[in-house]
This record gives sequence, structure tokens and C-alpha cells, in this order.
Amino acid sequence: MVDSPCEQASARFTSRWTLLEMILERVACYNSHSEANRYDHFGHRMKRVRASFFPPIALSPRAKNPLYRQLYDWFQRAIVTGQLRPGQRVPSTRSLAAELKISRIPALAAFEQLHAEGYLETFTGAGTCVAGSIPREGFQPASRKPRTPRRPRARKISRCVAALMSMAEPDLRNLGAFRVSLPALDHFPVGVWSSLLARHARNSTREMMAYGNQLGYAPFRDAIAEYLRTVRAVRCDPSQVMVVPGSQLGVQIAARALLDLNDPVWMEEPGYPGARQNLTMAGARLIPVPVDRDGLNVDEGIRRCRKARAVYITPSHQYPMGFTMSASRRMRLLNWAALHGSWIMEDDYDSEYRFGSHPIASLQGLDADARVIYIGTLSKVLFPALRVGYLVIPKDLVEAFIAAREATDIFSPTLYQAALTDFIREGHFARHIRRMRMLYAVRRHALGEAIRKQLGSMLEVVDAEAGMHLVALLPSGVNDRTVSRNAAEAGISTVPLSSCYHRRPARGGLVLGYGGTDAAQIDEGIRKLARIIRESMARR
Amino acid sequence: MVDSPCEQASARFTSRWTLLEMILERVACYNSHSEANRYDHFGHRMKRVRASFFPPIALSPRAKNPLYRQLYDWFQRAIVTGQLRPGQRVPSTRSLAAELKISRIPALAAFEQLHAEGYLETFTGAGTCVAGSIPREGFQPASRKPRTPRRPRARKISRCVAALMSMAEPDLRNLGAFRVSLPALDHFPVGVWSSLLARHARNSTREMMAYGNQLGYAPFRDAIAEYLRTVRAVRCDPSQVMVVPGSQLGVQIAARALLDLNDPVWMEEPGYPGARQNLTMAGARLIPVPVDRDGLNVDEGIRRCRKARAVYITPSHQYPMGFTMSASRRMRLLNWAALHGSWIMEDDYDSEYRFGSHPIASLQGLDADARVIYIGTLSKVLFPALRVGYLVIPKDLVEAFIAAREATDIFSPTLYQAALTDFIREGHFARHIRRMRMLYAVRRHALGEAIRKQLGSMLEVVDAEAGMHLVALLPSGVNDRTVSRNAAEAGISTVPLSSCYHRRPARGGLVLGYGGTDAAQIDEGIRKLARIIRESMARR
Repeated sequence: MVDSPCEQASARFTSRWTLLEMILERVACYNSHSEANRYDHFGHRMKRVRASFFPPIALSPRAKNPLYRQLYDWFQRAIVTGQLRPGQRVPSTRSLAAELKISRIPALAAFEQLHAEGYLETFTGAGTCVAGSIPREGFQPASRKPRTPRRPRARKISRCVAALMSMAEPDLRNLGAFRVSLPALDHFPVGVWSSLLARHARNSTREMMAYGNQLGYAPFRDAIAEYLRTVRAVRCDPSQVMVVPGSQLGVQIAARALLDLNDPVWMEEPGYPGARQNLTMAGARLIPVPVDRDGLNVDEGIRRCRKARAVYITPSHQYPMGFTMSASRRMRLLNWAALHGSWIMEDDYDSEYRFGSHPIASLQGLDADARVIYIGTLSKVLFPALRVGYLVIPKDLVEAFIAAREATDIFSPTLYQAALTDFIREGHFARHIRRMRMLYAVRRHALGEAIRKQLGSMLEVVDAEAGMHLVALLPSGVNDRTVSRNAAEAGISTVPLSSCYHRRPARGGLVLGYGGTDAAQIDEGIRKLARIIRESMARR
Repeated sequence: MVDSPCEQASARFTSRWTLLEMILERVACYNSHSEANRYDHFGHRMKRVRASFFPPIALSPRAKNPLYRQLYDWFQRAIVTGQLRPGQRVPSTRSLAAELKISRIPALAAFEQLHAEGYLETFTGAGTCVAGSIPREGFQPASRKPRTPRRPRARKISRCVAALMSMAEPDLRNLGAFRVSLPALDHFPVGVWSSLLARHARNSTREMMAYGNQLGYAPFRDAIAEYLRTVRAVRCDPSQVMVVPGSQLGVQIAARALLDLNDPVWMEEPGYPGARQNLTMAGARLIPVPVDRDGLNVDEGIRRCRKARAVYITPSHQYPMGFTMSASRRMRLLNWAALHGSWIMEDDYDSEYRFGSHPIASLQGLDADARVIYIGTLSKVLFPALRVGYLVIPKDLVEAFIAAREATDIFSPTLYQAALTDFIREGHFARHIRRMRMLYAVRRHALGEAIRKQLGSMLEVVDAEAGMHLVALLPSGVNDRTVSRNAAEAGISTVPLSSCYHRRPARGGLVLGYGGTDAAQIDEGIRKLARIIRESMARR
């Protein structure tokens, strides 16, 4: 099909173009024609559909993309960039195929797609045109235009995330010695676990593959409730258990369900940076409340903000210091919460590991006023890449938590929960915890000894016979972030104590994990650390 | 060890009790003593430690709890409830064991634990006492006290979640006919999947079990990027892909990264209720923008709120109407976003299934200004309980998204990602999509026919040859929520169209899924539905 200039003009007038534009475009067409090369910038040989007025189309018969797709892409780009303009007629599929010396089938397929997506439209008697509704300027990304000073900030992210980025920690996502929160992965019963997984995956029912319950898989919640009642003195039944992908999202779901924007929340000082991030993200206003050997100083919290809406707390094994909250502080905290209608988020993150005494009973178990949201995780007991944790929710709040969950990630993957149910029921879980408790006691001792021998004058271990990490204080004046950064370069993964503080602490320190660090790594790691700290002290 | 009243008094004076309190407590002690029964309320036989001044202790040798735990529980409860008061002396472990006729070992263990948790303290020469720091009133939950009118609302949840609860939908978490978003689970290659899972679980490396990358498992991101480039015309490389647990949390992570509180966001009207929940939760102010057969009406959006910070959109297959956004609207939208520095959240939730033409190219692929956050999910292609979706993030925003993810759920479970990589690389994924596309085309046809034959006068199908659901409009005046509720009672799972609207629509309708509904279910379901709608019309 041949379009005479006259036909083109009439098509344009129907789409209400002015004569001036028509003339300008004619010039542009001639220009683009005269500039057109026999090869495009990818080096494909080009074929001309027509000697004039229609831009050249480049097809590459040996390309991975089929011909129809190449044609579609060419037209789409030409329309989007304004090379073909709204209302402009395009050749018929027949003449296109003839000119390009290809079968008509790819041309038909391309045009069908271009029609379906609204790039082309066909009028009876008038042939096929670029859709008149396409913006005349084509698509002009702002970044290609010169910016005026009055333009809004073009790449604006949220203030909250900008703040989080500014307080970012050195990245710990490696497997260096002393990686905090990392369990002894090589001691996990991988064989048992993989066969449980395979068994449940093979026998997947429709129920197990479909959308699941927001609270989690019922048999798993039974098993978790029983475990928590027995081992952690948590008062709960399965209807209060919500399975979550780790304690981090657990904190966030609780915050969403319970807190309004800018609600004051007590946060342990020092405390868990992950929870601080989560609560900040949820819009809470954090009130740092100091921690001492008896745990959170409740009276000081009351003095700083009596009407806090909630408190985030790690009473069994304070993060990072490892202290246990005393009975009297627990009772004071519960009394305060009951009096002011405040909520308590109890993060019981690694309470399974206590070497000196029996595990400390949970705060939740003491609470007669149902003020405590109990948060736990299997990341530290089994392995982190599992992403399974749980909440125990006061009964009258369950509906609110379900609504918050529905608007977060809906529910947790079902298969892991099914396999974990058997893992618990068949005794593997209790056995693994027992074995790890013994292993971590040995590793803790080895780490303490190595520090005493090689770093006795430089690192002061804060004693707490529990968990998977310890805190060691640096001599005053030594910057823990510098030490941590230098250690990271030497392949050692430490958390600077000051990153756990809201305000700058009087004395820096290092949080050293030993769960996933064996005797040889401990020895070598401490030797390297001794060198690094000595260098820091020398520079001081 | 025997405590004389005089000794008790001195212990009390050391903890600065007044004489009056002492006298009052003496009376209380005698009272509780005279009331003490030989059996407690669980029917356990009680033993008296001493004839006077110390309350009776109930032990049950045949209970599941070991003796040390029973003793610990008894003391803890007595202290918490104020039965034993701060500074009060307790018997020695030796006399306790003798009185209770038990070995001394459980008594020692219980006291050790009570010491560790701070309930008891020992002073040299003065024996063991209830810790002086315990609050004198014990623990008094507020709910047991008469409430004064001035007390703050004691069980306050967040306003946002309260709002979500008030607009809760009828629960669809069942497997009834027409369940929206449910794929044909019985056609999923369970055998292949379970053997891939078992293979990867058995060969789990430390890297695969440890904390993973916030963006996801690298080989999986490679596979996803390749799939999206080829099939969805998404312009991306693996460094832009973030694996998320479903598109819901994907929307929320994007909102957290990009939006401040009360930022205006265009939302399709009608649109996806899940996204509305997520954006509300993230604090966005939603501006409903009407949708027609060409997709979102961009000009109307500009008229309603020119400076919206973002837009949530389903351009390939509008939810719920099924329309495809036209090329001109796409270009208008991209131009608007580039001009105003706005972000586009493109939810491409089930674009794999298009029966009439080739899949519609993504909006992201057109966008030269990197304004589009592309959101996809495997819930509809594979199965929902997998909880795997993905984002494609503009390169300069990747760091912000990582920070938002770190403060959300950190990362997605690794094992599924590893197994999915093989599932894609070995061709199972493409094969499954092809098979499902054919199956869903058949099911869609069957559903359309069944509606035409049995409900032709009552349901008007909105035509869109794509996806896993269709919308059918009810006669005006029929309440779709009532129909949907009645259908749910008959085991049929439909979404009332009005739940997708911000404002009440002119005409109600039903969203009917056919992905997970086979021919027999379709037939029976439509028969039931015809009866329910007829009843509703009769009542009208």
C-alpha cells in the first residue's frame, strides 16, 4: 500500500493536527530519511519499507527474538519515541511483508499484538494508523530534559528509610568467626530435616498448597504452644499462636496492630538494633530506657515517659548485655503496664540456651492482665534461613493481629510448618536443643578462656551464662566501630556495642557470637582480634 | 530453720516496714492460716511446712511437673500474689525438704532458680528472704481492680488496624468453587517439586542455612530476571530483583521505601483490596482513580490529584475487571510520573495467562525514566502456600529497598529459592505455565458457557480473555455482598465486586475464579449460584 502525501495529510486533519505541525513534520521526515543509514546501531542490515516517508525497519533473521517480536518491538519503539505519530498511517501487513521479504504471518502477529495493546487502530476504509490517543510528544522521560530548579525532587524516597540508611550497620551477612545470632549449622540434623520435608512435599494436599491460615498451620501451632507452655512457662493455647517469618516481622506486626504513629515506646538502652529499626519503621517514637544487671530500669522508664504505649524488652537474656530481668523489675513492669494500659513486647530470642541454671521463665507467664505479646524465633535454635518465628497473642487481640497480618504478608509458607511439626513431635527438636546447649557451653567457655589469655588486658567480658553471644568491653577511648570495621576486613564478624545504643555509650565494646564459631575459629579469631585492637590502641 | 516472730519482725524492719503494717500482716497471716485447708483447689494433698506463719505448700508427686518445678511455681506464685512479702524470711532448703518429706535436691534446684530470677535473696547470717526489691503490693492486674472512669482505654489497638477490621471481607480461606487467585493445585508437578526440595535440603551448605541476602538467593534472581526479560519484556538485571514472600509484602516494602505518611497515592477504582489494605497500613492516603476498558484513567487521576506521590496499578490485566491498559494511557502515565517525580507500582499478578493474544508487555519495559517498581508473584503460577514473589527495583532505589527489607522480614527462606531455580532452569516452570494456560482457557470457556446457559438473564460477564477469574455483573439493585455471603454458606467462594471499590459502585457483581475450579465444580457451582441469585432477586 502506498500512502500519498495527500492521504497522509487527510489522516492528520482527522486527528486535528494544524497545518504548521504538518509542515514541520514533513521536514523532520525528510531529515530522518536523509540521515537513515543502511545499518542500524546494532549493525543489523536494514531494509526500507518505502523509499520515502516511512522509517527503515531493521530485522535480523538470526536473532533470538522471532520476526514477529522484532516487528512488534520496532513499531512500539517508533511510536513511543514519537518517530511514528498519532494518526499516522502505517503500511498494510501485506505490503510490509512484501517489502521486508518475509512471510505475512509474523506481520499479522505483530499487528494483532500492537492492536491489542492499543498502539494501532484500524478505521474501515482508512487502513491502519497509529492510535490517535497516543500522546503527541511520545514518551519523554524527565531525566532527559533539562531540569528547572523548581522541579520537585525527582527520586524521593521515604524519610523513614532515608533515616534507616543513614544509621546502617556494617554488613554482617557473612560467615566469619563470631557472627552474632548464627547457630552451629554444621550440627543441624540435615538428613532428618530433608526427609521430613520431602515426605510432606510429596504428600502435599490441596489444603497445604492453597492460601493458609493467617495464624499458621494448626498442628504446628499445637506443637509450639505445648513447647512454650512446658519449657518457657508461657500461658497459652494454640488459638493464641501466630506463626511469623522471624521475630523481626513479629515485632512489626505487633507494632502495626497496637501502635499509632508517634506513640512513645520504651526501648532497652542498649538494645537490639533490629527491633529499633522495626519499631522506627512502624512509626513509633522510641524512648531509650537504661538497662542494668537487673534488666530494664522500670522506674527510670516511668520517669522518662510514664504513659508509653508499649515497651520492647528481652527479659530472659537481655540483648546484647545478657542480663536477666529480676523478679521485682518484672512485677514493676507488669504493674505499670496494667495501670497505664501499655503493651509489653517480650522478645525471648535465645532463651533456650542457659548454662548455669534452668531457663528463666518468661515474663508472659507471670502476666495476669494479658499485656504481654510474646515473640520467639526458630532462627537461633534451628537455622536462620528457615524464617520461622511465632507470636503468642493475648486472646482479645488475636483478631487485630490477624487483620494486621492479612495486610502484611498474609501467612507463612505451609510446608516448613508441616515438617517442623514432625520435627518437634518426633523429638528431634528437644534433642537438638539439648545437644546445642552442651556445645554452646563449651564454645562459650573456650571463647572466655581465649579472651582471658590473649586479650585479658584489653577486653572485659560482661558475664552472663546464657545465649549464643557475649559482650566484651573495650578500653575506654577505643572506637568499637573502627575495631569492628577492621575486624570485618580480616574476615571477622563482630557487632560494635555502640550500634546497640541510641546515644553514644561511655565505653565501646564488641558483641561476639560463638554459636556458629568452632574452637579453631575462636582461637584464630581472637588472635586476629588481639592484633586489631592493639593497633587501634596504638593509634589512639 | 525456725523463724520466731521476733526474727521476722527484725527482718521486716530492715526493709523499713512500719509497725502498723507489721501488725496488719500478722492478722492477715493468722487469717490465711485459719482458712487453710488440707486440700488445695486442685485436690492435691497439702503439707504444712510449719504450723504457723508460713502458708501451706501443695506438692503432687504424680504430677507431670518435677518436684523442683512445683516448688518453684509455688514460691513464685506466693511472692507474685503478695502472699509472701518482700523481706519475709523463707525456710531453709533443709527444713523445707524435711517438712515436705522430699529429698533436698529439688528444694535446692528450686531455690537456685528463684535466686537466679531475683525472687529470693540471701544475706550472710540472716538466711534466705523474699527479695526486698519486690513491689509490696505484689502484682495486681488492673483488670481485677474496679476501673475509674478516668482510666485510659485499657486494651487499645492501633487506629489503622481498627479501620482494617471494620472493612474486613468475608473470609475466603476455603477451597470452594470459584475461589479467586487459586490455581489448579492438583495439576502441579508435586513429584518433581518434592524431589528438588529434598535434593537441596540434603545438600544444604552453611551458606544456604545462614542469614541470606536481603535481595534473595543469587541464582534464583538470575533465573527470575531472565524469565521476566524474555516473557514479560521487563528491562532488568539480577541486581534489581528482590525476592519477597508474595506481592502483598512487596507492595508494602515498596510503600515503606518510597512513601511518607499521608502521601497521596492513586489507587485503581475498582482495584485490588489486598493492595488497598497494604497501602493503608503503610500510611498512604488513597485517591481512587476510575478504570475503564483502556485501564486507569490517567487524565482523571491528574485532575483528582496531580501531585500524587505514587500509583498502584495492574496494567496487563486489571484487577478485578480484566482490562488491558492501552498504549496511550501507558505513555500518559509514564509522562506524568516522570514530570512529577511519582512512582509507579506495577502489579503484574497473573499476566502469564492470556488466551486470545500474546502476553501484554509490562509497563516497566516501556519506562525510560526508571519510575516503575515491578511486582510479581509465583502464588498464581505455582501455588500460594509457597509465599514467593519478586520485585524489580529501579537501580538507584535498590539500597533504599534493602534498608526497608532489613527492617521488615530481612530476607526470604533460601531453600525454596534454590529448588525453584532448578524448577525454572530444568524447564518445569515453562511447561507448567503452558499446560495451565491451556487448562484455564478451557475452564474459562466452560464457566462462560455455564453462566450463559443458566444465568444468562442474571449475570453479565465482563469480557477479558485473560487471567484466572472473570467479573460478572449482577442486575442493578441486587446486593453483591449478600449474594456472596449466601454463596459462602453454600460452600461457594466469590468476591463481591463492591469490595473492590472505595465508594459504592452503581452496580454490584461477583469476581469468580476458575483457576482452581474444575468442570464439575463449575457446573455445580453455577447451579447453586443461580438459585442464590434468584432468591436475592425475589427478595428485592
